[in-house]
Amino acid sequence: MRGAMIHAPGDVRFETLDDPKILKPTDAIIRTAVTCVCGSDLWPYRGAEPIGDPHPMGHEYVGFVEEVGAEVTAIRPGQFVVGSFATSDNTCPNCLNGFPSNCLHREFMSTCQAEYVRIPNAQGTLVATDGVPDEKFWPGLLAVSDVLGTGWWAAEAAEVRPGSTAVVVGDGAVGLCAVIAAKEMGAERIIAMSRHSSRQKLARAFGATDIVTERGEEGVALVEEMTGGIGADSVLECVGTAEAMRQALHSARPGGSVGFVGVPHDVAVDGQELFFSHVGLRGGPAPVRRYLPDLIDRVLSGRIDPGKVFDLTLPLEQVAEGYQAMDERRAVKALLKP
Amino acid sequence: MRGAMIHAPGDVRFETLDDPKILKPTDAIIRTAVTCVCGSDLWPYRGAEPIGDPHPMGHEYVGFVEEVGAEVTAIRPGQFVVGSFATSDNTCPNCLNGFPSNCLHREFMSTCQAEYVRIPNAQGTLVATDGVPDEKFWPGLLAVSDVLGTGWWAAEAAEVRPGSTAVVVGDGAVGLCAVIAAKEMGAERIIAMSRHSSRQKLARAFGATDIVTERGEEGVALVEEMTGGIGADSVLECVGTAEAMRQALHSARPGGSVGFVGVPHDVAVDGQELFFSHVGLRGGPAPVRRYLPDLIDRVLSGRIDPGKVFDLTLPLEQVAEGYQAMDERRAVKALLKP
Repeated sequence: MRGAMIHAPGDVRFETLDDPKILKPTDAIIRTAVTCVCGSDLWPYRGAEPIGDPHPMGHEYVGFVEEVGAEVTAIRPGQFVVGSFATSDNTCPNCLNGFPSNCLHREFMSTCQAEYVRIPNAQGTLVATDGVPDEKFWPGLLAVSDVLGTGWWAAEAAEVRPGSTAVVVGDGAVGLCAVIAAKEMGAERIIAMSRHSSRQKLARAFGATDIVTERGEEGVALVEEMTGGIGADSVLECVGTAEAMRQALHSARPGGSVGFVGVPHDVAVDGQELFFSHVGLRGGPAPVRRYLPDLIDRVLSGRIDPGKVFDLTLPLEQVAEGYQAMDERRAVKALLKP
Repeated sequence: MRGAMIHAPGDVRFETLDDPKILKPTDAIIRTAVTCVCGSDLWPYRGAEPIGDPHPMGHEYVGFVEEVGAEVTAIRPGQFVVGSFATSDNTCPNCLNGFPSNCLHREFMSTCQAEYVRIPNAQGTLVATDGVPDEKFWPGLLAVSDVLGTGWWAAEAAEVRPGSTAVVVGDGAVGLCAVIAAKEMGAERIIAMSRHSSRQKLARAFGATDIVTERGEEGVALVEEMTGGIGADSVLECVGTAEAMRQALHSARPGGSVGFVGVPHDVAVDGQELFFSHVGLRGGPAPVRRYLPDLIDRVLSGRIDPGKVFDLTLPLEQVAEGYQAMDERRAVKALLKP
């Protein structure tokens, strides 16, 4: 089969690779329906994370089951399935506590920008749809498997409540999906921090009521002004830098909550500052598996359309162009079709 | 009148001071019924916080209203009142959001180890009891005003739920009161980290089901073993050091919660570690005012007796001995009687 390999910063190639095989009785093999490039794929692409030996890339997928291991009984070949970037058995204590992305048997996906993919923990990880969904829903379901699930988690961790005010820091695909999540959870006012007009438009389409283009303390001051001088109930941090975290913490009102879902790079939180702010802080890899049945329903019923975050569609063989377009911010998110 | 003044580390004196006066129409003056020494008073006493010029000490009090300012209508002279170490108007947005200890007009109390005390924001801060309570309840009500309120907040911030497992880090008066709070909120298993036999005894009397004497990673490993290998649902951090925070964060299960109520000294939290733990973190000065009516009821009904944390009772004039006894850990907490 063919798939993407990263060789060095800026160097992603589409190559012939070994077909994936069932390695454990809990595995499944899927044929990729659609896959995509994630904002977090840009960390190594930009040289901000070490690459080491050339390796496959990609952790987002929806597809058709090709083959299942002997212990996989809940799904069967031919089904259309949605999964998560973090695989989980769905039976361990962490899964039962609602944190499948901290499953004791978790394996992070990393080979999905390819024609076929091996899914570990397939029984716990994959959710089959009721029949094969119309192709128009595939991008939305692909978003569910990572960026929408992650935005959803940002809103849950930030304790978004009906009638509350939410700020979303970050206007990448996750930030935009976080706007959808805040709206679905009933936030009355949703302030999106964004300085790119196309992303602002999408944020508004998804439910943002206000746009703030200023960053840092200027942005914080504006949020404060818009929230009666005290800050927002909930702040959804969808970037992962120290600057974004600072902006998020300062934008929350006393006793408000910050949900942080961008993998933190060089972020340290001062204990005393957090203490006197009364702000609650929770983050982590999104427990997408827990949300799957609900989010799949919302997409297939047409209630939400997170697939709109894909503003570039390419054949899988042009995966390198997907990376480049996102790196140069010409695209929010690149969809790849095998 | 007479009261305590700190002059230098280790040097607390009982001196003649000016009588407090109504300075603002929102003030009240109370005659102290009982007051006490707080673990946090030991930071300057031990030279771990700068002292500057000699100044009064103490932020815990219950007493009799002597005089009220023109705008104080809800309480009147002669009443017995309980307050909080953080004064609040109880009407600002932060108060209405449940965080009176972040009131826009907050003033921290700091002159309570004295015969008379001026209470700013008296209308919002003070709660009068129904008649003068029997003297046997005064220590319990004094605990409500700070250490029990703070332990209660630790349990709330750590999201203690019925049936859950809670770990309490710190066996000072706040930690011991946190055990009461966890029990009252329905925790089924309460693990107290303590290596002092008299404190262990009190922790058990308050509801601790298990005692762990080990500290650091050894203590963490034991908690993990006691909780099916994953850690506790809730951890109540009642110390404020970097070591205690590390121990707390590592003792929580994936997706668990840490409530931290010890004022942090040189504590920094690594963003990436917090991220992958899925642990929620919230702390701050306890919103005691919000709890007062409920906690006063629990004490006066005899349901709880947080006054037991006072294991040394001294006349107010011996305040210096109170500091010394607590510094040398001969006493958990010293009650002072004017």
